Amino acid sequence: MRFSFAIIGLSLWLSAAVTPALAQAPLPDVPPALLEDIAVGSRVLADFGVVDGFGHVSARHPTNPNHFLMSRSLAPALVTADDIMEFDLDGNAIDARGRSLFLERFIHAEIYKARPDVMSVVHTHSPGVIPFSVSKAPLRPLFHNAAFLAVGVPVWDIAKEFGSTDMLVRDGGIGKSLARTLADKPVVLMRGHGDVTVGPDVKIAVFRAYYTDVNARLQSQAIGLGTEITYLSTEEGAKADAINFAVIDRIWNLWKQRVQLGLAK
Amino acid sequence: MRFSFAIIGLSLWLSAAVTPALAQAPLPDVPPALLEDIAVGSRVLADFGVVDGFGHVSARHPTNPNHFLMSRSLAPALVTADDIMEFDLDGNAIDARGRSLFLERFIHAEIYKARPDVMSVVHTHSPGVIPFSVSKAPLRPLFHNAAFLAVGVPVWDIAKEFGSTDMLVRDGGIGKSLARTLADKPVVLMRGHGDVTVGPDVKIAVFRAYYTDVNARLQSQAIGLGTEITYLSTEEGAKADAINFAVIDRIWNLWKQRVQLGLAK
Amino acid sequence: MRFSFAIIGLSLWLSAAVTPALAQAPLPDVPPALLEDIAVGSRVLADFGVVDGFGHVSARHPTNPNHFLMSRSLAPALVTADDIMEFDLDGNAIDARGRSLFLERFIHAEIYKARPDVMSVVHTHSPGVIPFSVSKAPLRPLFHNAAFLAVGVPVWDIAKEFGSTDMLVRDGGIGKSLARTLADKPVVLMRGHGDVTVGPDVKIAVFRAYYTDVNARLQSQAIGLGTEITYLSTEEGAKADAINFAVIDRIWNLWKQRVQLGLAK
Amino acid sequence: MRFSFAIIGLSLWLSAAVTPALAQAPLPDVPPALLEDIAVGSRVLADFGVVDGFGHVSARHPTNPNHFLMSRSLAPALVTADDIMEFDLDGNAIDARGRSLFLERFIHAEIYKARPDVMSVVHTHSPGVIPFSVSKAPLRPLFHNAAFLAVGVPVWDIAKEFGSTDMLVRDGGIGKSLARTLADKPVVLMRGHGDVTVGPDVKIAVFRAYYTDVNARLQSQAIGLGTEITYLSTEEGAKADAINFAVIDRIWNLWKQRVQLGLAK
Repeated sequence: MRFSFAIIGLSLWLSAAVTPALAQAPLPDVPPALLEDIAVGSRVLADFGVVDGFGHVSARHPTNPNHFLMSRSLAPALVTADDIMEFDLDGNAIDARGRSLFLERFIHAEIYKARPDVMSVVHTHSPGVIPFSVSKAPLRPLFHNAAFLAVGVPVWDIAKEFGSTDMLVRDGGIGKSLARTLADKPVVLMRGHGDVTVGPDVKIAVFRAYYTDVNARLQSQAIGLGTEITYLSTEEGAKADAINFAVIDRIWNLWKQRVQLGLAK
Repeated sequence: MRFSFAIIGLSLWLSAAVTPALAQAPLPDVPPALLEDIAVGSRVLADFGVVDGFGHVSARHPTNPNHFLMSRSLAPALVTADDIMEFDLDGNAIDARGRSLFLERFIHAEIYKARPDVMSVVHTHSPGVIPFSVSKAPLRPLFHNAAFLAVGVPVWDIAKEFGSTDMLVRDGGIGKSLARTLADKPVVLMRGHGDVTVGPDVKIAVFRAYYTDVNARLQSQAIGLGTEITYLSTEEGAKADAINFAVIDRIWNLWKQRVQLGLAK
Repeated sequence: MRFSFAIIGLSLWLSAAVTPALAQAPLPDVPPALLEDIAVGSRVLADFGVVDGFGHVSARHPTNPNHFLMSRSLAPALVTADDIMEFDLDGNAIDARGRSLFLERFIHAEIYKARPDVMSVVHTHSPGVIPFSVSKAPLRPLFHNAAFLAVGVPVWDIAKEFGSTDMLVRDGGIGKSLARTLADKPVVLMRGHGDVTVGPDVKIAVFRAYYTDVNARLQSQAIGLGTEITYLSTEEGAKADAINFAVIDRIWNLWKQRVQLGLAK
Repeated sequence: MRFSFAIIGLSLWLSAAVTPALAQAPLPDVPPALLEDIAVGSRVLADFGVVDGFGHVSARHPTNPNHFLMSRSLAPALVTADDIMEFDLDGNAIDARGRSLFLERFIHAEIYKARPDVMSVVHTHSPGVIPFSVSKAPLRPLFHNAAFLAVGVPVWDIAKEFGSTDMLVRDGGIGKSLARTLADKPVVLMRGHGDVTVGPDVKIAVFRAYYTDVNARLQSQAIGLGTEITYLSTEEGAKADAINFAVIDRIWNLWKQRVQLGLAK
């Protein structure tokens, strides 16, 4: 499930070269750096295999809290700043110009409604996480980079409220249910689907998506060792998560170089 | 078991450059797009490690339901549209021109006979699946991209009808046995060998081959967590599989870019 | 534990470009194709991660059964035809010209002595196999490409005859012990070390080294599913192994393209 | 968690090309080969996925035992000889010139104080090791390349002395505690964090970091086979570790080629 760097880079080059130029609706009141963070975050998670052909990264509009920014419907590995569109919190596109929308934009819309503190939302089908999403074993932090999991990781099962469905968050009602289960936490697992991570900016939300996946894989291996496991305490979780905030720029610059080097090829 | 994109691409370039041009039997009544889908599907599955040196993708002839199309005997990573040949449903090549045939073409021939609804067949030695093929643990869908598994995944053991063999589907009689076990399902596991996935077109059959392998790996990890697992219900399976049909073009275009970028290198 | 194709290729290019040219002792009575098979086999196994910085591939001299051919002491990823040297069955180099020898050449020497049927020997520190080498769980074939394991896989523990050692086959006495445990089998595991695979030619011995590692990994996963496992029967093993012999050239050509494309870069 | 070679290489090229040239404090009394070993060791471990955005390699100053050498705060994949700085054993930078320092330099400083025999220290967040760091299962050597583990692998839990913290070795007091737990061993695990490996030179310390991670992964798989495991005895450990010392240059040259080829691209 991993994309080699070479292919991500070539994909980006090719998509830039051969995709017919869409009549782009410029987003003049959004700093270009924010659009770039959304695009870089998507491609970083694709590069790590945390997302594959599915998954999305969004950010709340920096000056209009009732709007958010997300790519048109596109594989995460291919997202560029030019693909970012603007939405209201009912999931309606502002100035769609015929572009396809992610069916599950309601995940983002409803979380932005419910969580004024959240400025970025990431949805993945993270392979490390899917086994936990269908198991009774709670996801818990093993190590400091996943410290944000110490507050607890709720699991949302769509069937509880909606019976047998196609598993998708296809409207605001289902999105509200997901947001209720997320509550005030940084991560919610979606049974048989994937997860959502949130944060005060794109870098933190993407960092959390990545390290939730890493922690899931490592916790799975730790469980296989067959003994009691020492997880981070709640207090350790809070203190170590402050460090994650302190180091985020260093790790983001490394990740950005990885995907931009792809672009440069 | 993974092939890096760079090598797939270089392999394709080299095979085009140095393989002596075979006296190609053109297939004038087959749309080139279909031949390309078969080739792309083979290379995508090789790229993902779902097939290695072995495995094959076929499609029923679009206008003659008693014929099907499959590559000459060639590693899946190397298949191009020019390698595709035409066969009847007894596995005989139409216009062989001295090209080698896949020994196990009877897998495809007999399934096309037994299943008028099937327009594409994929055979893999999927590493994720082989452990399930030899175990009593039934393969069941964990997540929505593998929803098509919810109808049940039969396991065909060649020894039941044929005793100790070389494990290969080397004639129509063995192929009929496999087709009987497949019945009306989308996937059948082959004990100690691999699997077959089928679908109404190449893209769906290849999608199913990929996500059967992913599901097997994730289910293996979920089992290792040691608790009860919540699988997709039959109804969820049917509803979510409809979504897989809705998104197939988006994911196919991403996969096609991956292997074609290899070609362009 | 995986080497990307790009780096293997670049390693080969660089080693050809910058390694001081050794005063090479030509091997005029050895067909160049055999020297190339040894080099290709080494690099293929390095590429698959079956060997890393350690491990070696040898072939019995085609016209002098009391000599064998193996690279000078060099990481397997870097071996070229020019690195191949000739040895007698006591492990002495014919015309050493100051080149370093593999400390464990006695593995090869003693097996060629004990097994007149063997024309190629491969030694690896295969990661898939090492867990089985230290466990009581017997390695058994799950699928047809590993059919040659059906005759049984002995485990040689150096401590049985030699007490606490540095684990290396550093002389003929230890090599004889290993050859006795190998007996008439195609594979022997070496406790806490790796394995040895043998065959009637380099391609088969290398094929066996690769598929022994694959089978070990898949068997480990199958065991984790927690149910009874259906292994290949002895008769299935014999019949399916005949097929491995039938397809070896196709798979070898694919593998050779992979590492030679590396060279071409 | 793996970085492809291509990206490491491109990262190095890009960082050399676009990182503003720092006013470099030259280290005239340090042999350039030592600075290169530190840089190569960092990039090798990043390449293997043993370190990701975090982790560091240091060496004691060759002529002043009260100083040590380590990169400025930088992702391990990006370290070059020009990034190396000099520190005293209280973790103070000699001639900082505004460069950022690793927060956890106290790991290195305190171990150099406590261990006169140690000439190199490596700190990783090794994914293979983290599950062992939180489990009661002791890490023990499965195979000869990990023979140095036979003397025992202590686990340091910061909470024992310091209660709930952010898990970091952020001052000399915490560093002393870690050094006490390391005692005279070559490796110490850090609960919920990673590990530290030490050695008489950079190559050995880096070798140990790599093979500790490999051993952890293989031991995890061996445990999953469900039987008694035969680990290396203490005596085997001592004898086999002498061989690791004997082969270190061969493996280092292979690893160095891998990352330098990245540079050359």
